[in-house]
Amino acid sequence: MTLAWRHLLRALYLETSTPRTPKACPSPKVGAFWTSVTKLGLHTKPSMPPCDFTPERYQSLAYNRVLEIHKQHLSPVLTAYFSEPLLLHQGHMEWLFDYEGNRYLDFFSGIVTVSVGHCHPKVNAVAQKQLGRLWHTSAVFFHPPIHEYAEKLSALLPEPVIFLMNSGSEANDLAMLMARAHSNNTDIISFRGAYHGCSPYTLGLTNVGFYKMELPSGMGCQSTMCPDVFCGPWGGSHCRDSPVQTIRKCSCAPDCCQAKDQYIEQFKDTLNTSVASIAGFFAEPIQGVNGVVQYPKGFLKEAFELVRERGGVCIADEVIKEENLQENSQEVGTYMLLKFAKLRDEFEIVGDVRGKGLMIGIEMVKDKTSRQPLPREEVNQIHQDCKRMGLLIGRGGTFSQTFRIAPSMCITKPEVDFAVEVFRSAVIQHMESQDK
Amino acid sequence: MTLAWRHLLRALYLETSTPRTPKACPSPKVGAFWTSVTKLGLHTKPSMPPCDFTPERYQSLAYNRVLEIHKQHLSPVLTAYFSEPLLLHQGHMEWLFDYEGNRYLDFFSGIVTVSVGHCHPKVNAVAQKQLGRLWHTSAVFFHPPIHEYAEKLSALLPEPVIFLMNSGSEANDLAMLMARAHSNNTDIISFRGAYHGCSPYTLGLTNVGFYKMELPSGMGCQSTMCPDVFCGPWGGSHCRDSPVQTIRKCSCAPDCCQAKDQYIEQFKDTLNTSVASIAGFFAEPIQGVNGVVQYPKGFLKEAFELVRERGGVCIADEVIKEENLQENSQEVGTYMLLKFAKLRDEFEIVGDVRGKGLMIGIEMVKDKTSRQPLPREEVNQIHQDCKRMGLLIGRGGTFSQTFRIAPSMCITKPEVDFAVEVFRSAVIQHMESQDK
Repeated sequence: MTLAWRHLLRALYLETSTPRTPKACPSPKVGAFWTSVTKLGLHTKPSMPPCDFTPERYQSLAYNRVLEIHKQHLSPVLTAYFSEPLLLHQGHMEWLFDYEGNRYLDFFSGIVTVSVGHCHPKVNAVAQKQLGRLWHTSAVFFHPPIHEYAEKLSALLPEPVIFLMNSGSEANDLAMLMARAHSNNTDIISFRGAYHGCSPYTLGLTNVGFYKMELPSGMGCQSTMCPDVFCGPWGGSHCRDSPVQTIRKCSCAPDCCQAKDQYIEQFKDTLNTSVASIAGFFAEPIQGVNGVVQYPKGFLKEAFELVRERGGVCIADEVIKEENLQENSQEVGTYMLLKFAKLRDEFEIVGDVRGKGLMIGIEMVKDKTSRQPLPREEVNQIHQDCKRMGLLIGRGGTFSQTFRIAPSMCITKPEVDFAVEVFRSAVIQHMESQDK
Repeated sequence: MTLAWRHLLRALYLETSTPRTPKACPSPKVGAFWTSVTKLGLHTKPSMPPCDFTPERYQSLAYNRVLEIHKQHLSPVLTAYFSEPLLLHQGHMEWLFDYEGNRYLDFFSGIVTVSVGHCHPKVNAVAQKQLGRLWHTSAVFFHPPIHEYAEKLSALLPEPVIFLMNSGSEANDLAMLMARAHSNNTDIISFRGAYHGCSPYTLGLTNVGFYKMELPSGMGCQSTMCPDVFCGPWGGSHCRDSPVQTIRKCSCAPDCCQAKDQYIEQFKDTLNTSVASIAGFFAEPIQGVNGVVQYPKGFLKEAFELVRERGGVCIADEVIKEENLQENSQEVGTYMLLKFAKLRDEFEIVGDVRGKGLMIGIEMVKDKTSRQPLPREEVNQIHQDCKRMGLLIGRGGTFSQTFRIAPSMCITKPEVDFAVEVFRSAVIQHMESQDK
């Protein structure tokens, strides 16, 4: 196996077993803090809200056979969460069932894709009808469901032209081409920490170390500083468009944001020094893979203006949402954010809670003073314990230090209560085990 | 609209309305030949084999509304066949039904993808079961149907490692990366006329003018001469692995193929002059988009050896087929090839019939001496007439001069008879109209 080949493996790797070493940092007061936490006492497993759905009997491959096939025949880059990967059998709305019938509350929704819940009966009814009617005829013939969808989608957008693609990577491949063709320019910029796909072309935009490769790629792509108000050099307690702010102090007047101004200076610096002629600027409104990172309010608007006045186009890499479910997202999401924010106030290792609606990040740190990432093995343990208690959540961040929460839009407040309780128990158990 | 933007539009364009002008060439004897054909007399519409399936009532958008939405909101590169695009409603095995209930025999299968037939009941039963069980959980959790499939697929391959991707472009993106990572080399070669995807990265491999763009791409990719035994400089009547050979003469001894040797020399020339260090060589065993082009027997084997001895890997861009359906493909395909070959002998403008199994190309020419492509408008007319009589076929070739036939594997000989009869009628009608 050559060096470059190993890097290719790493490129699609979701959770490396060889952790990267974060920058060295002091860990003050940690021992003392953990000692005090153990006084909270032993926690029993939180009790799961009811669910009236019964999964079918599992009749497929045995667990060990699945592991064998995975090892033998599937790509080694397809690496699952947990040392004993979870073998799922069935899904129903916000619930997942494993091969043994154990039930899990899914707070990651197929990496933020199954937004209406698993096997939603309304979607299934339509999909099953379509299966019986026509699968695929390609673009050389017309088939009206595409036009029905285009009509509905375009009603939500200004001057829409709709391209339907197979994946996010394909969509961004095309968006890069279109930006270059439209502007007659070449250079495209994106944030450090951005994830815009891992096709060879979008790898130029994706600035997450795991995914980068030692192969020629990213021609004409430049990265710029991520305006991360929790981990970055600037940021305070009023920067974010979120019900929860960082723990950092703020000395700004009410109508200004020094952090935003500082990050805009960095953005200008990139435009002035590293770009010949700008074709486009790609940004996630909230960075997902990098751990639900939010920028200072007003940053994107100002950056977009800078790009546009130089002839470039701006591409928001985002998912387009349904109305009444969105209201639920707003209400239940805010409820959840505020509950997790309380855990941040309670525990020294919960460094930041952030997000908007149902897209939430919980950044785990060694301590709040240094804001250095909690070591990967420790985060793994908390992750594993959440699963054991029936809660599935995701991971993100440069050092995989951030938990990502993105449940389907049908979740309820009792389910949020359960999730927060599980997470709290896992954090406490972790600290107790560290303290021993 | 900038020039580059227009080129982007062209890049995904399936059938341009502005025809490219082929090289000038003489058209000897054509008038005389067409006159003789009119003596065959008027042809009535061939009668379609029966089908016991009744489509549902069409209840979606009106035809004109579909056209409007397409024009307003869908990408202008999604251009359908025919001046009045076909609005399809339903499919059943080898049959398609339009919004008015007209029935068509589908001999292109969604551009060579729906190989088992439309809405095959067995596939539908499994798909509907899966829809009710679980849609998607991403690679961070396991779900056994993927492992069941991997196990079955790997039984058909030597030392298989399986990557499941969303599309052919994505698969070739990855194959390019893997070839480069594995070999530690950069250069990749592919044939002129090859289609390996139209993602920005695979555009380096795809050498079909329509798809190319005036944007930086294809770094490290080189094209080499396509060993086309019908249109290329060398080729004879024993070159192909097909029940049907070209009309070109052959003076080779039984155990050699001069055409193959000449094309191999060209291949070596590319390796010696245009490649620093070879990472990989991509080839379709039979070129699809370029009009079902076949190479001389033994060419690929020899080319693969040349690449491998220089440290590169060889990638066959092909679709992996089911066993008992394959036997039908072989039998019915050969039956169909031989029937179409008779039309080639009958009509001067049917220049070549080729292929293997159910992948068939019919190259239309001005005349057999020059082998110059029949003008696009004339090919369009024949295509349109086939559709009017209830037969759907595809197009390919640099000048869109080749009909592509790739029906699903469930077709029968009576259906082939119908298709051949329709095609024959369309050719005769075309020549009669030219003769007026």
